[in-house]
Amino acid sequence: MIYLYSAQDGERYQHLLQQALPQHQVCCWPQPVEAAQVSYGVVWNPPAGFFAGMTQLQAVFVLGAGVDRILRRDDLDPAVPVIRLSDAGMAQQMLEYVLYGVLHVQRRMDQYQRQQQHRQWQAVAATAASETRIGVLGLGEIGGKVAQALAAMGYAVAGWSRQGRQLPGVADFVGEQGLPALLARSDILVNLLPATAATRGLLGSELLRQLPRGAALINAGRGEQVDEAALLGMLDSGHLRFALLDVFVVEPLESVHPLWSHPAVLLTPHIAAMTLAEPAVAQIVANLQALQQGLPPQGLVLRERGY
Amino acid sequence: MIYLYSAQDGERYQHLLQQALPQHQVCCWPQPVEAAQVSYGVVWNPPAGFFAGMTQLQAVFVLGAGVDRILRRDDLDPAVPVIRLSDAGMAQQMLEYVLYGVLHVQRRMDQYQRQQQHRQWQAVAATAASETRIGVLGLGEIGGKVAQALAAMGYAVAGWSRQGRQLPGVADFVGEQGLPALLARSDILVNLLPATAATRGLLGSELLRQLPRGAALINAGRGEQVDEAALLGMLDSGHLRFALLDVFVVEPLESVHPLWSHPAVLLTPHIAAMTLAEPAVAQIVANLQALQQGLPPQGLVLRERGY
Repeated sequence: MIYLYSAQDGERYQHLLQQALPQHQVCCWPQPVEAAQVSYGVVWNPPAGFFAGMTQLQAVFVLGAGVDRILRRDDLDPAVPVIRLSDAGMAQQMLEYVLYGVLHVQRRMDQYQRQQQHRQWQAVAATAASETRIGVLGLGEIGGKVAQALAAMGYAVAGWSRQGRQLPGVADFVGEQGLPALLARSDILVNLLPATAATRGLLGSELLRQLPRGAALINAGRGEQVDEAALLGMLDSGHLRFALLDVFVVEPLESVHPLWSHPAVLLTPHIAAMTLAEPAVAQIVANLQALQQGLPPQGLVLRERGY
Repeated sequence: MIYLYSAQDGERYQHLLQQALPQHQVCCWPQPVEAAQVSYGVVWNPPAGFFAGMTQLQAVFVLGAGVDRILRRDDLDPAVPVIRLSDAGMAQQMLEYVLYGVLHVQRRMDQYQRQQQHRQWQAVAATAASETRIGVLGLGEIGGKVAQALAAMGYAVAGWSRQGRQLPGVADFVGEQGLPALLARSDILVNLLPATAATRGLLGSELLRQLPRGAALINAGRGEQVDEAALLGMLDSGHLRFALLDVFVVEPLESVHPLWSHPAVLLTPHIAAMTLAEPAVAQIVANLQALQQGLPPQGLVLRERGY
């Protein structure tokens, strides 16, 4: 049996999975099931104890790209393979989101919005895409596609990753040693790193200070990777000009949090790359069939790596 | 001698031209010069009488794409070749501007900005690029590039022009008869039409009403092409959800105009495609060298055609 947990669109996923896998019974939480009957879990942030008693569990398919929370659980046997979504329409969405932030900064739409509030008609010198230096943190499936697409649009793109990755048109900065150089040349820093122990708290005041004065931050990676107090300080001092934030240390963002009303912040409720039901289900079905045939699934998580 | 007139960035243009053409003396208005010594003019809207006495003038380079004003002057010998900028980075800028508006609508950034003001954390269903129908009015040098680039990014793009134009991935709607069908399938209408007698006042209530309810308008063509009162009425009634406006009937937009404070309007001071100094100077230098070698320059204006 396949047991599904999704806070949103549960019925839709159940219908799509059942249609694609008629030989399996697909049940959806909170429908009660016999835990020992569950062969596969398809989940996004299930409640504590969800996996308790699932002694026959053969794999867990995560309805997203982020698996940090699932790997920290104590009700899931570490021997059970965890498979995350890889892309499934998310890279395109992420590119759209990042591009919106890039254009907002490059074309000075923040300044024009302020001017509009004051009924002020004043052109500001334009910056060409080729003079707009973007630094992308994380060159995985999503970050790599975003970096390449921005470079193809004419932006001056550099990418940073742990081990380095050669991408057409993207300057390659590698590891701890490469980070200061990337920061120093980034007018817009785009965080698309996966959530691992190594990336937690990475973007604190020490690193943010290395960005050029007036730089902007786009965070569509994970909230825990940014020190929010340090970010607020940099925005207040003007060292950073603008931030577009989709992720936060605590989500939903607490209603008293100062980020909500900061004039240099645009924020969105973790929507940069939403899981799209059809491509997600197609990928899960293909991976389930691969597992059953003894073939390697796409997006298999390596626990020691963290993604 | 090269004599330069530009209300903005005069020193920058002077510096760039002098650097690229060390064998010429580059002077910049209001620096007084001997008119008979001027071989080349590089100008944008110079004052009346500017060309008086320039008996040795070999060519005038215009710092823009529009030459209607320069062709109407009585101080310029009609035998002197006039060379306009052709593209010089303007199509790329226009694409950036239109793309910003498209992403603002598609990714519901208008709604997220309102929610941010109310500290409201609420994801809204995403619309895929492929489900976002864009209609581009005007398929000239700029409109054609914008339509093609949006199609390449996965949007469902249709274009409208007087005579029709086949572009890869862009549905072709032609002439007066084609306009209603284009409007009926445009979630986002993008106006990039040239300023002619035929396009003045085109977008009045009769045509705007044919857009689907909740559609958006991006106007980066000419202000006179849109009936601003009709547009305001459509925004008030909710028939239109959003407008991004760069051009207006009267510019600068009068400070009492209701568009400034309309909650569904983002407006910018005619900056969608600005002349960029570097590519403009590069093009002028290449054209000047072509003329000196007896080769045809790019962007030579035919007076009888008007551009």
